[in-house]
Amino acid sequence: MNHHENTHTISVLVENEFGVLARVSGMFAGRGFNIDALSVAPTPDPRVSRMTIITHGNALIIEQILKQLNRLIDVLKVIDVSSEACVRRELMLVKLRLNDKNKAELAKLADEAHGKIVDASDPRIQILEFVGEHQEMEGILKKLQPFEILEVVRTGNIAMQKGKNVLMPFPGEAVG
Amino acid sequence: MNHHENTHTISVLVENEFGVLARVSGMFAGRGFNIDALSVAPTPDPRVSRMTIITHGNALIIEQILKQLNRLIDVLKVIDVSSEACVRRELMLVKLRLNDKNKAELAKLADEAHGKIVDASDPRIQILEFVGEHQEMEGILKKLQPFEILEVVRTGNIAMQKGKNVLMPFPGEAVG
Repeated sequence: MNHHENTHTISVLVENEFGVLARVSGMFAGRGFNIDALSVAPTPDPRVSRMTIITHGNALIIEQILKQLNRLIDVLKVIDVSSEACVRRELMLVKLRLNDKNKAELAKLADEAHGKIVDASDPRIQILEFVGEHQEMEGILKKLQPFEILEVVRTGNIAMQKGKNVLMPFPGEAVG
Repeated sequence: MNHHENTHTISVLVENEFGVLARVSGMFAGRGFNIDALSVAPTPDPRVSRMTIITHGNALIIEQILKQLNRLIDVLKVIDVSSEACVRRELMLVKLRLNDKNKAELAKLADEAHGKIVDASDPRIQILEFVGEHQEMEGILKKLQPFEILEVVRTGNIAMQKGKNVLMPFPGEAVG
C-alpha cells in the first residue's frame, strides 16, 4: 500500500435478510475489491443489521465500491466514514505463554496498553483483552513480539460518527 | 429459537485469499444456514485470517455447517467453541442523547457496566463503549432503553479457548 492506497472504513446498514452477507461479499469478490476486515451484527431494529467493512484502494476504487454497495437491494445506507470525525474501535484477544522471567514485564506492558487479563486458568498462559483503534492494536502486537504469542483474534475496526450525526436506515422514521 | 435451536460460536481459520469471505458466506446462503453475526480479520501470520461465526440451529444443522466448512478449500481449521471453555467477548458502541435529568443516571449505569465514554464532543450526545459477552451486551441495551438510543454498532462475539489449547492453522508448524 502507498499513499494512493489508503485504508477506508465503510459503514453499511443492510436489511436483516437471509444471505445478505453473501451478496455483499460476493459483490466485492466479483468486482475484484478487497475486504481487509469485516464485522456484521444485528442492531436494536430487528429489520436491520450493521456491517463495518475495512477495505483499501485509490479514490476511484473506493468510489466504485460505494456505488456498487448502494446498488444492492438489501443495502439501506452506506457511508465511507474514513474522512468523518469518528470513533473507531477494535477488540483483540491475545494468548501468550509466560515464564518466570517475563511475567512482570508483560503485566507492565498490558497495564500501559490498558489491557485486561481475561484468562489465567493455566498459570503459564494468559489471555489479554485490548480495545482501541486498529493502529494501536498493531502497536501492541509489535510490543508483544518478544513474548510467545500463541493465538490472536480480532474484530477489525467498528466505527461511529462523533456527535449527533446518525446512520439512519429508514429516512423519515423517528429515531430511537 | 427454542432449546433445540442453540446459538453456536464457530472459529474458523482461513487462508488469506481473495474472495474467501464470499465463498464461506456463499456456502451458508446456498445451503440455507443462518449467520447471526460474523467478524473476520487478519492474524499475525499473513497467510491466515480468522473468522468468528455466530449461528444457530439444531445439532444436525450445526454438524452440517462444520462438515461443509471443512470441505471449503480455503478453510484451514474449524472449531465449534460453544461447548469449550472459552473467553467470549463482544465490543459495542452506543450513541445516546442526554438531557439534564438523565445525565447522572446514565453515568451511574455506564459505570456499573464498565462502560467508557469515548465521545462527548456534543454536550447533549455521548458515545459509550462496552465490552463483554453477547448476553451482557443484551442486558446493557435493555437497561439503556429508558434513554434515547440513537445508534448501536457491535462486533458480534469473538472467542478464544481458555488455557493452552490453540487453533493451529498449519499442524506441524511451530507456534509463535
